[in-house]
Amino acid sequence: MTLATPAYDRLTALHARLHRLDHLGAIAGWDQAANMPTKGNEARAAALSELATLTHRLRTDAVLRDTLSAAEQEPLSEDQRANLREIRRDWRAANALPEALVARRQMATSRCEHAWRSQRPANDWAGFVENFREVVAVGREEAARLADEMGCGRYEALMDRYEPGMTTAEVDRVFGDLRQWLPGLIARVIERQATEPVISPEGPFDVERQRALCGSVMRLLDFDFDAGRLDVSTHPFCGGVPEDVRMTTRFSEHDFLGSLMGTVHETGHGRYEQNRPRHLIEQPVSQARSMAIHESQSLAFEMQLGSHPGFVGLMAPLVRAQLGDQAAFNTANLARLLTRVKRGLIRVEADEVTYPAHVLLRYGIERALVEGDIEPEDIPALWDEQMRELLHLDTCGNFRDGPLQDVHWPEGLFGYFPCYTLGAMYAAQWFAAMRQEMPDLDQRIARGELSPVFNWLRERIWTQGSRWPTDELCRRASGQALNPGHFRRHLESRYLSA
Amino acid sequence: MTLATPAYDRLTALHARLHRLDHLGAIAGWDQAANMPTKGNEARAAALSELATLTHRLRTDAVLRDTLSAAEQEPLSEDQRANLREIRRDWRAANALPEALVARRQMATSRCEHAWRSQRPANDWAGFVENFREVVAVGREEAARLADEMGCGRYEALMDRYEPGMTTAEVDRVFGDLRQWLPGLIARVIERQATEPVISPEGPFDVERQRALCGSVMRLLDFDFDAGRLDVSTHPFCGGVPEDVRMTTRFSEHDFLGSLMGTVHETGHGRYEQNRPRHLIEQPVSQARSMAIHESQSLAFEMQLGSHPGFVGLMAPLVRAQLGDQAAFNTANLARLLTRVKRGLIRVEADEVTYPAHVLLRYGIERALVEGDIEPEDIPALWDEQMRELLHLDTCGNFRDGPLQDVHWPEGLFGYFPCYTLGAMYAAQWFAAMRQEMPDLDQRIARGELSPVFNWLRERIWTQGSRWPTDELCRRASGQALNPGHFRRHLESRYLSA
Repeated sequence: MTLATPAYDRLTALHARLHRLDHLGAIAGWDQAANMPTKGNEARAAALSELATLTHRLRTDAVLRDTLSAAEQEPLSEDQRANLREIRRDWRAANALPEALVARRQMATSRCEHAWRSQRPANDWAGFVENFREVVAVGREEAARLADEMGCGRYEALMDRYEPGMTTAEVDRVFGDLRQWLPGLIARVIERQATEPVISPEGPFDVERQRALCGSVMRLLDFDFDAGRLDVSTHPFCGGVPEDVRMTTRFSEHDFLGSLMGTVHETGHGRYEQNRPRHLIEQPVSQARSMAIHESQSLAFEMQLGSHPGFVGLMAPLVRAQLGDQAAFNTANLARLLTRVKRGLIRVEADEVTYPAHVLLRYGIERALVEGDIEPEDIPALWDEQMRELLHLDTCGNFRDGPLQDVHWPEGLFGYFPCYTLGAMYAAQWFAAMRQEMPDLDQRIARGELSPVFNWLRERIWTQGSRWPTDELCRRASGQALNPGHFRRHLESRYLSA
Repeated sequence: MTLATPAYDRLTALHARLHRLDHLGAIAGWDQAANMPTKGNEARAAALSELATLTHRLRTDAVLRDTLSAAEQEPLSEDQRANLREIRRDWRAANALPEALVARRQMATSRCEHAWRSQRPANDWAGFVENFREVVAVGREEAARLADEMGCGRYEALMDRYEPGMTTAEVDRVFGDLRQWLPGLIARVIERQATEPVISPEGPFDVERQRALCGSVMRLLDFDFDAGRLDVSTHPFCGGVPEDVRMTTRFSEHDFLGSLMGTVHETGHGRYEQNRPRHLIEQPVSQARSMAIHESQSLAFEMQLGSHPGFVGLMAPLVRAQLGDQAAFNTANLARLLTRVKRGLIRVEADEVTYPAHVLLRYGIERALVEGDIEPEDIPALWDEQMRELLHLDTCGNFRDGPLQDVHWPEGLFGYFPCYTLGAMYAAQWFAAMRQEMPDLDQRIARGELSPVFNWLRERIWTQGSRWPTDELCRRASGQALNPGHFRRHLESRYLSA
């Protein structure tokens, strides 16, 4: 006999409703990026904003406080209790900040982001700071309120939105470790690669052929095309809904590897979404665990698997089938092309070895900014100092390719950057755990047996949704807490051995 | 000074909200037909149904009865009063039927339509009637309730949903006129065309070339591609929102004229939507006047203009540019291909001369059905009798290509069919009025001057939205009430003269 859980049932009914309404927003948002003609923009923005207002009202209904308390006294199963924990997290996030502050944030970030679009190409740091001060002020107030409520540090409170349960102490621990060995490792890899011959592919590459190539690689990666699509947008993303994943990429006739590996990356996000627990799909407990765990899937696909020499051997014939035979398209050369390491100014163009340096730099700056230790005016000098230290690059006066390069700060997304590198670390840890369980994993990948990888990820990560807190998910999946040593060994093995 | 109209303002705020929420439903509905992979269907249906429940609740909020009455006492402008009339119409439609009946209808039509999909190919009339009886019973109850409230006949009450203000007396008048001359005209046209030589186009026709051809003809028709798109779906339609019109077509390698003229048809619907009054776009008064007026635009494009010999002369070089040069692609032959008249069993494949016969038949049967004069069992015999009389065709035992051919009855859309032929009549009347005002219209069309046509339609129809009742719109646009003589003269002139 099932015991009555009326309060919990009211909460799950609400979240089923939110899931369905959010579905419409997700499809309309994807359509906006992938299909919508210019004149549709104003009406689309109004429609999406109406929906956001509506779902916000549903999430902040005053009655929910009591319903949540009542549900917590009900006789729930372990799964239901996990769901209730996530429902409370969703409720806390929606109700933590007063409406006036939410509106002020919306105004500040939308003004700053809009102006940033032209300020970046104009290298206009002074103009940017004018708007950015208010974004920082709002971010600090949000951080203060959330930190008070959660009883934690201010930056940690913002980070919790993307990476629940992650502490600054933990980030300091793993990033501190990273900072010790990364610059030296970058130097050794660059020195070693200096003498390696690499053949450049010769374009142009027909866009329809590239699209077909992306499709065949997505099939190799077991993307379910009956439950998703690949389309084109200016900024690639993985959107849609778990039942119908909408991935996008962009094509350039001069560079097929960018869209191909971008597609492999998004396919990792896509398969995570496609394999969330089905029977609870409308409930928060079914959602992807966190941003770092999401990124650990896209990087497991793009870096751990996608640039794996065995996997490159599987892709090479697909590349030749679509783009013709070229000297550059032999497996060894393609693998080299995918693992070139170069110190550069731009984060989104960075390889997996130098990428963490960009994140270390941003983490240090945005944390100090949120906690009031520095002001926006102080950023360029700190940026330049860190770029010199970590990547030996001079960015003096080059704001465009310096602190103006990312959309995160104009949008007030403080606390997000660490997730990228935490994700790379988790991805390395998943593959280390797989190798321990399956010592012949690399040979199997090279033979085209990818199901051991997909089965491991499906079982340990995808179908777990948000059932466990992140640290427990990590221990259950890999047998230990987050350990940056796996990432280090991955880089050393791929870039410095043999 | 503007007088306060608080109740009216509350109503316009509600309708702005509904417009925005309906936007999301329209885009998700278009996406479902044009993009969605199979496994997305269940979640999409749940999302759309959640939205429908939500907007229905907003439309049936008990407070609206008093708000409407209060608004009717407020000092409104003429435009506002027209808007209020349409708001009341929307309210009446949403509130006229008890929720239990709406649910019963949903259940009956969804079961009947679903089974019909396989019953039609199986020619299973007996199986169909099993489900259809309940659809008819629900339709009769709806008709009775609506007729009571509106003080009109039962069929008229159902027709009013699609064609507000249209009476059965008026339909009887114009269809009675039509029935007198149509069968004779069909016979004369067929006799005359029997001796005309026509060259058939030789396929196959590349789908990408056909797509480009449709695009170039849409540009010729001034479709605004910054405010809409053309995509592919199984059943072509014109959807989306007025700010972003989503047209679809389907391609066959063996027949390019079907998709081309289907696209011309949908472009008429699309331009009507794109040119609805902008400043009131979120309000009911901005909506297209009625289904017959909407159809008058698609038929003005497809038949009046699209099959006009002058316009065919403009399309011919576009056809040759995309599909290559063929003997069949000279203007005279293309014009003949577009005006072939043939008695056939299927309405959607009918030419403009025989099409009205299909509508006369359906109008007679569905009206008798709704008013209780016949039962579903009586339909096949009546169908056969009417097909013999109007088109000299025997349909005995062929239910698949007889009463099972249309989706309207399984979906319970009684009262819709007359709109098709009323639309054809209005379209002929618009062109007759244009010719009276611009005696050189046909020469101008042949010279590629299409703006006189578009300007006339924009000014008289598109930008009028729902400002006037249909009969007043018709008189303001063309100087007289609906007059089926224009349609007759159009057919005689195109098919029997010179």
